[in-house]
Amino acid sequence: MKKAVVLLSGGLDSTTAVYLAKSQGYEVYAISFDYGQRQKKELESAQKVALAAGVKEHIVVKTNMNAWGGSALTDTNIDVPLGDENRKEIPVTYVPARNMIFLSFAASYAEVIGAQDIFIGVSEVDYSGYVDCRKEFIVAMEAAINLGTVCAAEHGKNIKIHAPFMNMTKADEIRLGMDLGVDYSLTWTCYRGEESACGECDSCILRLKAFKEAGYIDPIPYAKKA
Amino acid sequence: MKKAVVLLSGGLDSTTAVYLAKSQGYEVYAISFDYGQRQKKELESAQKVALAAGVKEHIVVKTNMNAWGGSALTDTNIDVPLGDENRKEIPVTYVPARNMIFLSFAASYAEVIGAQDIFIGVSEVDYSGYVDCRKEFIVAMEAAINLGTVCAAEHGKNIKIHAPFMNMTKADEIRLGMDLGVDYSLTWTCYRGEESACGECDSCILRLKAFKEAGYIDPIPYAKKA
Repeated sequence: MKKAVVLLSGGLDSTTAVYLAKSQGYEVYAISFDYGQRQKKELESAQKVALAAGVKEHIVVKTNMNAWGGSALTDTNIDVPLGDENRKEIPVTYVPARNMIFLSFAASYAEVIGAQDIFIGVSEVDYSGYVDCRKEFIVAMEAAINLGTVCAAEHGKNIKIHAPFMNMTKADEIRLGMDLGVDYSLTWTCYRGEESACGECDSCILRLKAFKEAGYIDPIPYAKKA
Repeated sequence: MKKAVVLLSGGLDSTTAVYLAKSQGYEVYAISFDYGQRQKKELESAQKVALAAGVKEHIVVKTNMNAWGGSALTDTNIDVPLGDENRKEIPVTYVPARNMIFLSFAASYAEVIGAQDIFIGVSEVDYSGYVDCRKEFIVAMEAAINLGTVCAAEHGKNIKIHAPFMNMTKADEIRLGMDLGVDYSLTWTCYRGEESACGECDSCILRLKAFKEAGYIDPIPYAKKA
């Protein structure tokens, strides 16, 4: 059975990616990151999703990306701002080089288990302006992986980064996930780590909007729905 | 003063890179990795070198790259082999995607402190066959960094990866380091973590040979000199 490493944050996108990889016949090796993020609820969600989806293995990488701060998601001195769909600049929730770090770990893991496929749930549509979610970055990273791993550079077993939602709206992604049997009540998207999702940060706003467009009710509890 | 992030393992190459960056007028921000390596002596060396060289800041990233094993350097079930200068295959001391992970963290750190220069002490000459020490990988990684960070992709402040020893023999590197005032007695190269360097692993053999060629006595103690 072919193996895939799937980046699993416990959010909507990565959870859908796990189910999509499974539907394509992959044995899923999920990888999550306890990287010093201010909220750990997404990690609890990642565990639940891994269990529900029946992944082959679920690894949680621990690291201190908060050592140098620079993001509202890792530095508790910076507040998570209210969502703003018209914001033009990169929001303070951007975590420098996060997807590069995540994909590097995924490449290492893939090489060891003999996987040639990595799934990441990024999108150029309906995103928050993060540069490391763009197609050109993913393409460049795949090139680096194929020069920097022995499996690819020496043995011709190239690794492919699948970003299946790159050109998909989040609403279409949810429709796809529903068809694949995803239980979105297990997922966590909010940047804040309160008991209920805040409903006000960029992440909640994008999620709520997407569920509405898709014609489904978001099954998780919200403190407030904008 | 221009800033540089320098990858500092505490070994010969990275220590020389710290001194070289300083000599080129950079304020040095050193970054080391406690990644689950079997020996921690190199981290003690990194601390000593950072202090001796007077770096501006020294960050130790903690992470568990040993979660999936696959290397004699992170998996204590795999023995560090005796050195073999004629070995053709990649040795078991190869740590999958290690330099990719290290450079990704360096890029994140660089972006936060506003550095546009990263130094890494890799070489295509006198190395152990690791694919992630080759020039083409470094070039690909630099491209990925410049597409995946906001400073570069959005603000035109590209990040450059300097690999000053890429085409240099280790002997020439030691001569350069001596001219720059490096105290090699502070460094640690051996793959094993005993009281003295073993003198028998690939890493010790390359180091001893280089000191001999450079015409200097290696100041660290060895259990055995091959």
